[in-house]
Amino acid sequence: MGQRIVVIGGTAGGMSAAAKAKRENLNADVIVYEASHYISYGSCGLPYYVGDMIDQADSLVSMTPEEARKNRQIEVHTRHRVNKINRKNKKLEVENLEDGKIESVPYDFLVVATGASPIKPPISGMEAEGVHVLRNVEDGIGLKEDLTKDKGQTVGIIGGGFIGLETAEQISLLGNPVHIFEMENRLLPTFPESFGQKIKDQLTDHSVTVHLGTAVTDILTDKEDHISKIKLSDGSEHSLDILLVSVGVKPRTDLAKEAGLELGENGGILVDDHMRTSDDAIYACGDAIQMKNRITNKPAYVPLGTTANKTGRIAGANIAGGDENFQWILGSQITKVFDLYVGGTGLNESQAQSAGFEIDTVTIVQPDQAGYYPGWEKIWVHLVFEKSTGRILGAQLLGSKGIAGRINVFVTAISQGMTVEEINNLDLVYAPPVAPVYDPILIAASQALKKVQP
Amino acid sequence: MGQRIVVIGGTAGGMSAAAKAKRENLNADVIVYEASHYISYGSCGLPYYVGDMIDQADSLVSMTPEEARKNRQIEVHTRHRVNKINRKNKKLEVENLEDGKIESVPYDFLVVATGASPIKPPISGMEAEGVHVLRNVEDGIGLKEDLTKDKGQTVGIIGGGFIGLETAEQISLLGNPVHIFEMENRLLPTFPESFGQKIKDQLTDHSVTVHLGTAVTDILTDKEDHISKIKLSDGSEHSLDILLVSVGVKPRTDLAKEAGLELGENGGILVDDHMRTSDDAIYACGDAIQMKNRITNKPAYVPLGTTANKTGRIAGANIAGGDENFQWILGSQITKVFDLYVGGTGLNESQAQSAGFEIDTVTIVQPDQAGYYPGWEKIWVHLVFEKSTGRILGAQLLGSKGIAGRINVFVTAISQGMTVEEINNLDLVYAPPVAPVYDPILIAASQALKKVQP
Repeated sequence: MGQRIVVIGGTAGGMSAAAKAKRENLNADVIVYEASHYISYGSCGLPYYVGDMIDQADSLVSMTPEEARKNRQIEVHTRHRVNKINRKNKKLEVENLEDGKIESVPYDFLVVATGASPIKPPISGMEAEGVHVLRNVEDGIGLKEDLTKDKGQTVGIIGGGFIGLETAEQISLLGNPVHIFEMENRLLPTFPESFGQKIKDQLTDHSVTVHLGTAVTDILTDKEDHISKIKLSDGSEHSLDILLVSVGVKPRTDLAKEAGLELGENGGILVDDHMRTSDDAIYACGDAIQMKNRITNKPAYVPLGTTANKTGRIAGANIAGGDENFQWILGSQITKVFDLYVGGTGLNESQAQSAGFEIDTVTIVQPDQAGYYPGWEKIWVHLVFEKSTGRILGAQLLGSKGIAGRINVFVTAISQGMTVEEINNLDLVYAPPVAPVYDPILIAASQALKKVQP
Repeated sequence: MGQRIVVIGGTAGGMSAAAKAKRENLNADVIVYEASHYISYGSCGLPYYVGDMIDQADSLVSMTPEEARKNRQIEVHTRHRVNKINRKNKKLEVENLEDGKIESVPYDFLVVATGASPIKPPISGMEAEGVHVLRNVEDGIGLKEDLTKDKGQTVGIIGGGFIGLETAEQISLLGNPVHIFEMENRLLPTFPESFGQKIKDQLTDHSVTVHLGTAVTDILTDKEDHISKIKLSDGSEHSLDILLVSVGVKPRTDLAKEAGLELGENGGILVDDHMRTSDDAIYACGDAIQMKNRITNKPAYVPLGTTANKTGRIAGANIAGGDENFQWILGSQITKVFDLYVGGTGLNESQAQSAGFEIDTVTIVQPDQAGYYPGWEKIWVHLVFEKSTGRILGAQLLGSKGIAGRINVFVTAISQGMTVEEINNLDLVYAPPVAPVYDPILIAASQALKKVQP
């Protein structure tokens, strides 16, 4: 009889682990329990589903339970919640959410891919009708249903992070008045201040109202217990029909914690670079784990689909007898807000300083194409580098879609420990429609090079 | 009295050398002689000037002689041709092309930036009216004038290289019937065969007729000595109003050769990595020099504005007492043909084999965005890597504009000697509008990784 590999959670991390384990060990029985109706969905696509750019929620799903069974020989149980991990007997207590039946399920290896849950700030009225979070497919369907009930409903979004901004863009494009409420005095506080200002201008230009430096203290409801308005810390009140709470997520670790698995200092499940937890028979992956920054080797938490997929694959490979290690993350991120893209990789100024680096920075702005070629747009490049060596530590970019590939050049450079001098020597591509003769990457690197003081 | 630094040639390489030398050595007299009317022009923009995307030829010029004098303290003489280098006396024979006067000009340091000249194949009738090359601003103006004389003139282009394709696109967009005549049996013979086919389909879909595997043998003229038709090696004849000859360029080295400067095996002026020629007082840069491939350290010739600028800068810095070396080229290139972009870097399959590498390759096709995000386009990635180590040697990409940044990731990876395994571990950015969760770069690298045989 083959090994029994049981996976808790059927999204990116869990399904990657299951698929990889089965592929590498055909004799294994691979079983996945997922509490929701859906597996393998791209939660990063939810804002675009809400905004009608994607018609069907099913489009976000890359594999159905039936396809997993048929094409991958993975046994998938949706609407099944694991209530308990019994490490001593290597058994799980699994509840069928449809009929409430509970069964005991043995495992040889377990993968905990319980993901992350939306943070709910302590605001009275959070459970009112019309208040949403946006994390799984059901959340997306619920928010979309609520939006389509009536035309022109006013929508508030608490939190100016990437998901908040993307959803603000999408709902605004539907024609609804949208308000963003951000506690900080600026948007995108981990980016240079000017970037946050430009994103704010972009939102304002597209009729999204941005409220900064003010917290939502109360959600007020009407007689049907539906949200009617919110109160802010500055005392003002705003009428709202719908509210999306989007202030980030935290690793979902109740199950792991109760089972006595070690947690990391930022709350995620502690794993080594093989995705093994403190129990040799249990692996974890995806948004539930404590990640590390590749540069500092210190705890970091940037829950993204890319990392979930990769850590899942590594967990699956190692359970199946492989020896794969994860090189951790640079925190590479990008998003689109109407016509502006913003993103970065590596350490920002304050992260680099906190990590003990003596740094300098440069910020440049350049066209993304030859200046004489019609349709060029500006690109801002902000570099963080070690002052004495010129080693590149971080890069943050804003501007046209062309920033994506440029951030990835910096991802590669940072992963290799390159200096700004080495970047300045790169033989990058050039043609009038795609880049100026000196790419913004090279301009930024040559400016930085002048500031290096060995 | 300061040094006299004389530069022959006022385009990218020459002007970069002049500007850098003056900046680093303010006491020097820096004098530039340029045979045409224009300096500092972007010849890569000429197809777009011909195609009316750029209205004024002046837009291609980044600095006028007046600006060079006023802002950079560089003495620029246009319409002055250097006829002879007298190395013994360190003097030049310079002819004023306006009045025919010849003067003798001394130098302490000389920069030879004579560029490249269009190759003219041995076809009878090449000097007929209506036959053009496209290399400098005057060429562009001449071709555009000819095109605007009459509407709907039929245009032939000999050569299916990047400039030929770009000009075909542009003239076709003006509404003229365009025919490309390419001797090889395929377009883009240095790229994978399927890429050439897709570019051919793209041209055909946009009403450009592509004739492959056939050479133009004769240009026939009417009574006014104007082109009327061409004869092909297959015996057929085609009526044409205008013909552009675009079969590549060769380093312009008559002057250097006559002065006894050493030339490299592919005909360019031999320089070391400091851009110094075989004469210590003479530097060379830009399209006139023999380049080297950064991977093989063997002669290569990829004349591009980027390399001209960089080698010019290095020549100028070293003449002014600096110690800068050039890291040579990867041959990074990109172009746009209607809605398709194609480009690459490093060695292609046959170049890698010729260089003695035992290689393997992979080709993948993937969406450039999340598959559920509207508007995604395909990207093809072809990788060339060393079979035993997985070291990446070359990458060639085709598809949407998103290939540009991805090629640059491979530029960075190749420059660093990275393996496909290291590329597979990169923490690249992800968001539905800019990339799939596994970027095509990662898919290609992971496919390649499976073929590595240590």
